[in-house]
Amino acid sequence: MYSVIEALYPICRSITGEGVRQSLSILSKYIPLEIHEIPSGTKVFDWTVPKEWNIRDAYIKNSKGEKIIDFKNSNLHILNYSVPIKDKMNFDTLKKHLHTLPEHPNWIPYRTTYYDETWGFCLSHNQFLELQEEEYEVLIDSSLEDGYLTYGEYYLPGETENEILISCHICHPSLCNDNLSGMVLTTFLAKYLSSVSLRYSYRFIFIPGTIGSITWLSKNELSLSKIKHGLVVACVGDSGPFTYKKSRRGDAEIDRVVINVLKHSEEEHNIIEFFPYGYDERQYCSPGFNLPVGCLMRTSHGQYPEYHTSADDLDFIQAENLASSFLLYLSVLSVLESNTKSLSLNSKCEPQLGRRGLYDKLGAQTDKEIRQMTILWVLNLSDGEHTLLDISERSDLSFDLVKEVFDTLVEHNLLTEVS
Amino acid sequence: MYSVIEALYPICRSITGEGVRQSLSILSKYIPLEIHEIPSGTKVFDWTVPKEWNIRDAYIKNSKGEKIIDFKNSNLHILNYSVPIKDKMNFDTLKKHLHTLPEHPNWIPYRTTYYDETWGFCLSHNQFLELQEEEYEVLIDSSLEDGYLTYGEYYLPGETENEILISCHICHPSLCNDNLSGMVLTTFLAKYLSSVSLRYSYRFIFIPGTIGSITWLSKNELSLSKIKHGLVVACVGDSGPFTYKKSRRGDAEIDRVVINVLKHSEEEHNIIEFFPYGYDERQYCSPGFNLPVGCLMRTSHGQYPEYHTSADDLDFIQAENLASSFLLYLSVLSVLESNTKSLSLNSKCEPQLGRRGLYDKLGAQTDKEIRQMTILWVLNLSDGEHTLLDISERSDLSFDLVKEVFDTLVEHNLLTEVS
Amino acid sequence: MYSVIEALYPICRSITGEGVRQSLSILSKYIPLEIHEIPSGTKVFDWTVPKEWNIRDAYIKNSKGEKIIDFKNSNLHILNYSVPIKDKMNFDTLKKHLHTLPEHPNWIPYRTTYYDETWGFCLSHNQFLELQEEEYEVLIDSSLEDGYLTYGEYYLPGETENEILISCHICHPSLCNDNLSGMVLTTFLAKYLSSVSLRYSYRFIFIPGTIGSITWLSKNELSLSKIKHGLVVACVGDSGPFTYKKSRRGDAEIDRVVINVLKHSEEEHNIIEFFPYGYDERQYCSPGFNLPVGCLMRTSHGQYPEYHTSADDLDFIQAENLASSFLLYLSVLSVLESNTKSLSLNSKCEPQLGRRGLYDKLGAQTDKEIRQMTILWVLNLSDGEHTLLDISERSDLSFDLVKEVFDTLVEHNLLTEVS
Repeated sequence: MYSVIEALYPICRSITGEGVRQSLSILSKYIPLEIHEIPSGTKVFDWTVPKEWNIRDAYIKNSKGEKIIDFKNSNLHILNYSVPIKDKMNFDTLKKHLHTLPEHPNWIPYRTTYYDETWGFCLSHNQFLELQEEEYEVLIDSSLEDGYLTYGEYYLPGETENEILISCHICHPSLCNDNLSGMVLTTFLAKYLSSVSLRYSYRFIFIPGTIGSITWLSKNELSLSKIKHGLVVACVGDSGPFTYKKSRRGDAEIDRVVINVLKHSEEEHNIIEFFPYGYDERQYCSPGFNLPVGCLMRTSHGQYPEYHTSADDLDFIQAENLASSFLLYLSVLSVLESNTKSLSLNSKCEPQLGRRGLYDKLGAQTDKEIRQMTILWVLNLSDGEHTLLDISERSDLSFDLVKEVFDTLVEHNLLTEVS
Repeated sequence: MYSVIEALYPICRSITGEGVRQSLSILSKYIPLEIHEIPSGTKVFDWTVPKEWNIRDAYIKNSKGEKIIDFKNSNLHILNYSVPIKDKMNFDTLKKHLHTLPEHPNWIPYRTTYYDETWGFCLSHNQFLELQEEEYEVLIDSSLEDGYLTYGEYYLPGETENEILISCHICHPSLCNDNLSGMVLTTFLAKYLSSVSLRYSYRFIFIPGTIGSITWLSKNELSLSKIKHGLVVACVGDSGPFTYKKSRRGDAEIDRVVINVLKHSEEEHNIIEFFPYGYDERQYCSPGFNLPVGCLMRTSHGQYPEYHTSADDLDFIQAENLASSFLLYLSVLSVLESNTKSLSLNSKCEPQLGRRGLYDKLGAQTDKEIRQMTILWVLNLSDGEHTLLDISERSDLSFDLVKEVFDTLVEHNLLTEVS
Repeated sequence: MYSVIEALYPICRSITGEGVRQSLSILSKYIPLEIHEIPSGTKVFDWTVPKEWNIRDAYIKNSKGEKIIDFKNSNLHILNYSVPIKDKMNFDTLKKHLHTLPEHPNWIPYRTTYYDETWGFCLSHNQFLELQEEEYEVLIDSSLEDGYLTYGEYYLPGETENEILISCHICHPSLCNDNLSGMVLTTFLAKYLSSVSLRYSYRFIFIPGTIGSITWLSKNELSLSKIKHGLVVACVGDSGPFTYKKSRRGDAEIDRVVINVLKHSEEEHNIIEFFPYGYDERQYCSPGFNLPVGCLMRTSHGQYPEYHTSADDLDFIQAENLASSFLLYLSVLSVLESNTKSLSLNSKCEPQLGRRGLYDKLGAQTDKEIRQMTILWVLNLSDGEHTLLDISERSDLSFDLVKEVFDTLVEHNLLTEVS
């Protein structure tokens, strides 16, 4: 995953344009992405698909003709969605178009101007302090013209038409944690799941933030009822503890599953209530849809100083964090896949476990005792009303153990799955 | 309000009699009170309207003929509802009719004998200690005869027939906090509300405690279903923190509103559960009615040492406390008036706020961020099921802010009120 | 109760056999037990009634012919349900059949082999350490043959057919707390209740653990719906605090009643959630029945070191603990007996208590105030929906006080019981 991020890092992405197409093309090497192109001007609910933005070059030269700010050094230098300009101006005029972060004087901030046609440059505050009262030459060789909004989608069919939605935003330029990490994790999750047998169908979408999810929801409004669970994938490469932001419902199965998995993972983590800010869960959880979609991150957006700055670079994320995030996502999906209701075929009194050898499994004494308690809990709650997740929650035993015992008891014809 | 209390203070009130009529007459200068006179002997549920009590004079003279206790000095000196007496007696006989407060030797206690025909005097314990073994002359020039129970009512019609009941007890003699403070606050609240446009109709009642609310409920039994919310007003002039005693229901809208307003007021306050003792909420919340009526006080009855003594005087209450209590009541009623359900007209995804200038309001950065979050919360919860109070509770944003944002969004045709 | 335990202590009980019959015969002196004999081989749900086990003698002799382990010294020496054997063997062979408790080297453990036909001896670890490498003579004069499973039952009819089930296990040999204490407490409870008038019918069952309750449930399946509440009686003689293990339902009336009684008893106690391990509540609370049966103990099974060892002897239990356990059980049953719904006959406003003398009861001032508050609470909640238990829970007043006040108010025609 890390090496794919390295390949994606230099590309200048935005909510539209060639950077998005190049990025999806790289991810298409791993999974068969279907690319959608939605024309500028298309009405999507209360919004309109904007003009397509592309940029070839941009710089600021001083009076000696030296490029003191150069887009080729960092695509964060340009206010994303800047209109073209080629002009000379004094420092006072230029200054109104410069953005810096005084509290982190070496970092370049990331700023956008999607819905306000202007231009600007972002630079480190130290660079800014070196600027003189002189004449500057400013060039932004960009275009803002009718074109398309581009997004990628991969549908992986399972046994049923019930869907799990996995969504990531792809609109940020050279920022690694937010959200190249989410883009590659989603890709590798899709690649892995395509190799195993699945109860649910999966829909992976790679979209520009906000306008992308709005566009996708608008185009898929009639089939949203198939979505039973969903996750927004973002900020999964940093070294912070996991953060799960619940869906607007707060007690959806996806919420309970992620909380359960995190609890039994014994990893440090934070569970936070839904609030209507953040990533595309804002749209999925808008009142007209209220989809059961949460957001599973490491450090939450805005909660680390490197957020939306040039410091969210290749050093800020680590391969092992991506790997453990990947495994956590797999655990969550694995619980959803196997979370069925259980019905005892001997519901009146306990079945006799001894004659079936169910008390005699090998293992350390403690393991045997926990396993025996798990057997008794699973049998006791297998009334056809409790799911395996319910059993895990009530018994405080991990879902994995409950599931393993459930499978053994099904083999012994003591339990059956019910829907 | 304080000067009206000064005018009411000297009057000797009881559950019936001229003192009540004089008091209501003073309040009638501010609001058009309708005066009801219910004859003695009228059956009201399990009770009977008692004989009317009036008193002209009362004293105890020592053997030298000096008035050592004089009703004209304080109407608390007389056991309220004492039958007439004119007699001479020795100290031992007199002593059985004397009431003092040894733990506060300078204060005169307030005592009553409504349903037991006897007589008595209340005096400070220091006065009592000076009494000698000598002959005393005792006079109580009172009358206890068939007459009327008097109460005042003011009905203020609003847009709908749904009513808010505001009730205060008027039966105490010279006690300021309990409850001249409640009587004047209710009067000025009524006066103010009569000058504004109202969704609810309001019914203000000025009644003797217990027998008064029982009588009123008995006379108005058929129209009680119109009462949607109610508050008993008492002890609102002292300097203690606010106390809200919930209705018997515990989760009525009035309970949630008062708790919400107090929480966001950042004033120190106590929320207490309903218990079947206190003021007229005892009757409104009796099981056959179970009206959503709470009691909003400053220091709760019985919780301050001056309670029911001569120390609950004009010094014990302050004009600024009356004022802040008045404002709190207004805030509560204002929330009730504007607590409607909100429905988004763009419920599928967020509406585009930028092009409506809704991100551009002036103000400090922090204010802008809070305001923006409020906009997002109100939009997100405007599914036609949540009231503005629900939104305030879930977002932990003040009702005032939620309401202000709601109004702005209605202006922009993004939301509408639904019932 | 203690002296009956002394009589029962020496008998070697098991899940079947003469020891059970002798024990039930002793208890039959106090209550008219109906004895049930279920033939070996009878199918009971997933189980089969086992062969009947009886034992006359057992010992291990060393090479000098000395009885170094003798069943006549303690019936715990024999692995319960051992098959007969008469053989000579060396130490290495014998060792595989010996069970000790190294962490308590003076105590003999209690072990069973109900469903695995083998044999063995239990001994103190100190005894074990003295054994030499020599030839041993081993005798177990037992029989394991078709016979019967024996249990006792006493049905005490009340006013209604609704039943309270009181169940104790009778299968342990010389162990006092677990469960001679439960057997005698159940017996004396039955004896006492047979002398008083009862609303509920009671069913007391004296059964071997697990297989006994399974057998009883199997034989009585069609009448289980009459069981409205139940308790499993065990470990009620030790000096630890009370422990209540809730029914699987967790909020059954029996759960709320025991918790209420323990709370107001001011005795130290623990409330624990249901878990599917322990005594016969495992069967009563299996998903096919889910009966409202909890387990009321002093120290819970497995939570004291003497549990299932020779140290659970006549010194480990005390007569006064048995007595206080008995009184607690009586309090619980007394609440169940009198927990009716209450309806006010004056539900509109408070009734006038003064003219009925209900404010004038003798007693200390504090008692009078608590009593008056109780009167007001009971009246206020007597809407025909609240039980006396509900009233006790909401008012935080003891059930006994609530019940006493309820009875007084019924006498005064202010309340009536409703169902």
